[in-house]
Amino acid sequence: MAKIVGLVGVGLIGGSIVLDLKEKGFVTKVLASDLSERNASKALELRIADEIVELDALIEKSDIIIIATPVNASVKLVSYVLDRVGDGQYVMDVGSTKSLLDKEIEGHSRRGQFVATHPMAGTEFSGPEAAFKGLFKDRVAIICNPEKSNPKALNAISELYYHLEMRMILMDADSHDEHVGYVSHLSHAISYALAVAVLDKEKDDTAIFNLAAGGFASTVRLAKSSVDMWLPIFEQNAEHVLPILDTYLEKLTQFKTYLEAGDTKGLAGFIAEANRIKDKLKK
Amino acid sequence: MAKIVGLVGVGLIGGSIVLDLKEKGFVTKVLASDLSERNASKALELRIADEIVELDALIEKSDIIIIATPVNASVKLVSYVLDRVGDGQYVMDVGSTKSLLDKEIEGHSRRGQFVATHPMAGTEFSGPEAAFKGLFKDRVAIICNPEKSNPKALNAISELYYHLEMRMILMDADSHDEHVGYVSHLSHAISYALAVAVLDKEKDDTAIFNLAAGGFASTVRLAKSSVDMWLPIFEQNAEHVLPILDTYLEKLTQFKTYLEAGDTKGLAGFIAEANRIKDKLKK
Repeated sequence: MAKIVGLVGVGLIGGSIVLDLKEKGFVTKVLASDLSERNASKALELRIADEIVELDALIEKSDIIIIATPVNASVKLVSYVLDRVGDGQYVMDVGSTKSLLDKEIEGHSRRGQFVATHPMAGTEFSGPEAAFKGLFKDRVAIICNPEKSNPKALNAISELYYHLEMRMILMDADSHDEHVGYVSHLSHAISYALAVAVLDKEKDDTAIFNLAAGGFASTVRLAKSSVDMWLPIFEQNAEHVLPILDTYLEKLTQFKTYLEAGDTKGLAGFIAEANRIKDKLKK
Repeated sequence: MAKIVGLVGVGLIGGSIVLDLKEKGFVTKVLASDLSERNASKALELRIADEIVELDALIEKSDIIIIATPVNASVKLVSYVLDRVGDGQYVMDVGSTKSLLDKEIEGHSRRGQFVATHPMAGTEFSGPEAAFKGLFKDRVAIICNPEKSNPKALNAISELYYHLEMRMILMDADSHDEHVGYVSHLSHAISYALAVAVLDKEKDDTAIFNLAAGGFASTVRLAKSSVDMWLPIFEQNAEHVLPILDTYLEKLTQFKTYLEAGDTKGLAGFIAEANRIKDKLKK
């Protein structure tokens, strides 16, 4: 059953979603809306969007509305959109934080038509030019608090993720925020700090980046991720990210303490423990 | 001018070097020696080595001897090899630390026949099976304290790196150790700590790795790097790695402090500063 999709925010995530949905024939037409005129016209040019429309027109004409903006904007947008949808229209977000959004729309009369989702894939790049087909294949999509969405909404959105060839995991918003705090937000924080530390060193040592090899490039990759997207994620998830940062700082300090003390056994044990990640990521 | 190369330690680095040197015709024959019989026979099987010989025989028969063992072993091996070489034989290492080695062989009568080198490339894997052609192409090879090597040794080794299509940078051992502390050893330490933190969390949350997406995989990749190789690197370079870890811990704590205080401007500035890494890594 082909559909009209309204995409609010034409960036890496939203753009990649609709590119795949069009290819699979799940979507007949993509209406898009973006605060940035540049992004909007780029989305037309790249055939991510078939038509750029005002937000209210998008809401009126779409079967499924995908909110794919930074999370500070999406918290307000979801309410705005739910205020305006009629029966048979469904709304989803794709944001990396869920608790605040969940509270924001608690008790909304159209709450059942909304599904809180987080397709877990991305790159360090952003904007419509960063979108590409196949980004989500075989990755995990988290559906938060499915009990708050009505069966028809869940059906529509799970079909959408089926067509993206994603595996769904259902959990509550708070668990989601803690989990992604560990496997995504923490990685971004430590990568940002790595970039800042090495850039600081560069101030009196301009040659440092000549030596940056593959290992550094990999660890620092996420530090390229945009302020617009990540600042609101950290702010909305501070409650979980702060204790996770404490845990991380503790572990790294433990490593440093072993090294400082010349504790070969402690250091070897720490690295061997870290090496266990090999088996975990194979699964 | 084709040569017989003696490879001491047939792992990722040494194996990849000789695979390329053979392909380019720089090397006619590779003699190899390895404490691990398994690695030695694997190297034969994979045609990394043409012959497995005892260390003393390898020293006797090789034009160039490449020490490609973990750095705790190489510190001793370089002296052992230099004690036994004759005129016209040259020796190089490929290790990630240089100051200790430099002190160890200071004043050796054959010091001029040794060139301290560090080809900056690698993966998180180890052993002869991890070796592959093209690992070094267009990467940087550091040559340490070239003034301590004689012109013929420098000529032989620079020719070797020319055939690997690497760009050479010359610096003293202490600068090398500080630089790689920043761009390589620090990345490994923070990746090990990330793995340990998330594995710790997994103890009461077995589902955490279901959600590990691309961002996490990239930041934690180096945590797979082996104890055998990395423990001695950290121990030999503790003098530089410790203050670098302090700087890093300071930066990450700064990030945490901004987040804790709800200091949006501070946090945005931190991320924007980190984003500057984009331009630096493009070069």
